[in-house]
Amino acid sequence: MNTYAPTDRTKVRRLAKRGAYDKAVVHSILDEGLICHVGFAVEGQPYVIPTLYARDGERLYVHGSAVSRMLKTLAEGVDVCITVTLVDAFVLARSAFHHSMNYRSVVVLGRAQLVTDDAERMNALRTITNHIVPNRWEEVREPNELEMRQTSVLTLPLEEVSAKIRIGEPKDDEEDYALPVWGGIVPISTQVGRPIDDGRVRAEARAPDLSRFERKAKTPA
Amino acid sequence: MNTYAPTDRTKVRRLAKRGAYDKAVVHSILDEGLICHVGFAVEGQPYVIPTLYARDGERLYVHGSAVSRMLKTLAEGVDVCITVTLVDAFVLARSAFHHSMNYRSVVVLGRAQLVTDDAERMNALRTITNHIVPNRWEEVREPNELEMRQTSVLTLPLEEVSAKIRIGEPKDDEEDYALPVWGGIVPISTQVGRPIDDGRVRAEARAPDLSRFERKAKTPA
Repeated sequence: MNTYAPTDRTKVRRLAKRGAYDKAVVHSILDEGLICHVGFAVEGQPYVIPTLYARDGERLYVHGSAVSRMLKTLAEGVDVCITVTLVDAFVLARSAFHHSMNYRSVVVLGRAQLVTDDAERMNALRTITNHIVPNRWEEVREPNELEMRQTSVLTLPLEEVSAKIRIGEPKDDEEDYALPVWGGIVPISTQVGRPIDDGRVRAEARAPDLSRFERKAKTPA
Repeated sequence: MNTYAPTDRTKVRRLAKRGAYDKAVVHSILDEGLICHVGFAVEGQPYVIPTLYARDGERLYVHGSAVSRMLKTLAEGVDVCITVTLVDAFVLARSAFHHSMNYRSVVVLGRAQLVTDDAERMNALRTITNHIVPNRWEEVREPNELEMRQTSVLTLPLEEVSAKIRIGEPKDDEEDYALPVWGGIVPISTQVGRPIDDGRVRAEARAPDLSRFERKAKTPA
């Protein structure tokens, strides 16, 4: 199966042509994103919290302090939504109504599970670390036992998943093209600046590998 | 009052020094953000949806198609969480455990209300449009009656609000500074590329005002 089966809850209904369930498309969005927004409810009140994450095959991993409210709540097996959003461009139309955004987003629904297996926990942390800076894990000091006890790792399987994508030009009403108003797209991207060391870096240390950000410039607007 | 009163639900408990309730700080984050993530639950399942927004005084506004699930659900007066997140830097420590992110986020809790007053609706749409591109509203064709009927505007008061902020260098364990591992921060920012017109722009049209993005480069890492 190269696609996720849409469910009543993940099927993109309005503007259905923007919906995508192809695994390769979903994976590429999840792999390009830097942070996710995790949604969960406590006593009926939804909370949306930004956090780091990573994909490993057909699983997402998030981590955090073992005593954080989010991690404790999610570890109880509550329903969760993890959303990753990439903003690619602002779409400026001649009419206010047709203004839009080019974006790629993925919504994953399900129940997060606390990862208890030590090897899987360590692998998840490695994957999250290397998601931002490739090979970083291989350079740094690995977590010790105390640090591992202070860390919770949660996983959410990629089962109930949909992507939503808008690309391309504004779509103005035909008569509005006669207006003296600029129309088109303004590309948006996430860029890294020059790394700033903390003044205590030893001479033999290698600068961080920021190659994943080079790809970003090539994303379609 | 220059601060929002923390509640049981918005008080930042773990790493409390990262919490901020100052209105000026909250406003500056909300005004710099481009999109928010809206969290709401339908039959117990949380959903987290990215969307455009804007602040006007002590209110947030979001808009969308009158027939979208999100807008219809929120218009019923359900509990909602709107989160805006700015990622400022990756914080690369010598130990995996102390890796972090410099960020500024705002979480707003409450019940969204459908805006029904025509003038407030129009003003909200103007504010959302100009949030991204200043003075854009004044250049484009305003929504007509049919378009206004197809649009829902929701508002959420800034009452139960908190910001969370991390700034500065990594904090490594003292003995880890002897490791030959690079430590410091990698600044991250949202940048606009050169606007790409859609090939039907009239000669007298002015290019879009992207001045709000110039400010971004100056944000602290």
